Amino acid sequence: MRISRTRAREGVEPAPIFVLVEPQMGENIGAAARAMLNFGISGLRLAAPRDGWPNPKAAAMASGASLVIDQAQVFDDLDAALSDCQYVIATTARRRELATPVLAPGEAARELRARVGSGQRCAVLFGGERNGLSSDDVARADAILSIPVNPAFASINLAQAALVVAYEWARAGDMATIEPPRDQDTPADKAALAHFFDRFESALDAADYFYPTEKRPGMVRNLRAAFSRAGFTEAEIRTLHGAVRALSRLPK
Amino acid sequence: MRISRTRAREGVEPAPIFVLVEPQMGENIGAAARAMLNFGISGLRLAAPRDGWPNPKAAAMASGASLVIDQAQVFDDLDAALSDCQYVIATTARRRELATPVLAPGEAARELRARVGSGQRCAVLFGGERNGLSSDDVARADAILSIPVNPAFASINLAQAALVVAYEWARAGDMATIEPPRDQDTPADKAALAHFFDRFESALDAADYFYPTEKRPGMVRNLRAAFSRAGFTEAEIRTLHGAVRALSRLPK
Repeated sequence: MRISRTRAREGVEPAPIFVLVEPQMGENIGAAARAMLNFGISGLRLAAPRDGWPNPKAAAMASGASLVIDQAQVFDDLDAALSDCQYVIATTARRRELATPVLAPGEAARELRARVGSGQRCAVLFGGERNGLSSDDVARADAILSIPVNPAFASINLAQAALVVAYEWARAGDMATIEPPRDQDTPADKAALAHFFDRFESALDAADYFYPTEKRPGMVRNLRAAFSRAGFTEAEIRTLHGAVRALSRLPK
Repeated sequence: MRISRTRAREGVEPAPIFVLVEPQMGENIGAAARAMLNFGISGLRLAAPRDGWPNPKAAAMASGASLVIDQAQVFDDLDAALSDCQYVIATTARRRELATPVLAPGEAARELRARVGSGQRCAVLFGGERNGLSSDDVARADAILSIPVNPAFASINLAQAALVVAYEWARAGDMATIEPPRDQDTPADKAALAHFFDRFESALDAADYFYPTEKRPGMVRNLRAAFSRAGFTEAEIRTLHGAVRALSRLPK
């Protein structure tokens, strides 16, 4: 997955806005800021933060994620925070007596990608540490995002919830594997392996390894199978050649 | 996503083991325990915890996740912690000079689901807070799991890394079509591999293979990484022992 360094620094890749509804402890706001920015999301809004704003504890905890705190927008209530948003997802574990559709984080991320991609301003709501989102808060959402936690033990905190949602957002942006393999990690071609097998088996023959003789074909086959699926690189095969040579030189 | 309440409480759904390598602060161990249990993973091993064990700070932070702490196994070193494991994934953001394949968390989770489903004991390694996993630690792994974080800001802590991996594990359980076990035999556990490395490296030492001496650690690491990801079965390892013995004819 590639997040352009420039865009991440400027925070301009279109992304959902994370809205903390009546957040309590400044440290948790700062931790949420760090969690989001791990996955390139930098737009933060606070609706009626308990301790007002700015909040030195939030800034201190945010540390290197200060751009999120510095750019955070603060509102008196949730309606104000959502006034320019076209699609809102409420993150909550508790079942509500509402007909709002419930999405898994991955589904929600795909929905957000589609809408953000078509220019809609989207927000994801996170409730305060003590009580989470109220039913009135959830009633403002187009959909509910529920992180599927263990019913016997559910302890996800605010920053962790923000982390999972941001992570899914990033994952939905690029399903490819992370890094292309390095050239030097490319498995050697089968000719290089065959050459190694020749040397290896010759050395083993000289050491009378294959015994009894009629077992040799099967033993060779098993060795070749083991090495063939290991994906050894050319450098590793050179190393193995060297090891075989070194061991073979020992006095018998 | 459904995790049976009973099974979650008993922690019996087969799952990967999370191994913390030289973890430092007890609070972080406790936080990791909580993070894992959110997604039904309760098997925790500690390799050389800095402050020993038991650790009251870990227990206190774990709180309702006490079953994870109570059942945690402690080992003197990583080899001991992995001796009965057949497949190991190292969680790390740093690129290594090893050919070990790098998987996104979702890919890693699918791989774990397939292997755990076919009865292999799997472990996921997490490094200590300060330095993460060493290259020697990573060399013991079959694959690397890299959480695709923002290159301009990466701040995922131990509990958050455990959370993301555990979350992906849970998510992969939902989506699975459980893949049939692969045709090759079950991989040998890491203890069998470690024993082979001892013999192999002793033989190479006797043959003056490692030259110059200061290059030995890196050469050993590369050899171990190459063999660790090959998934050799017990039969194949016995074969390799025989080959080394034959080539070197060292006293048994």
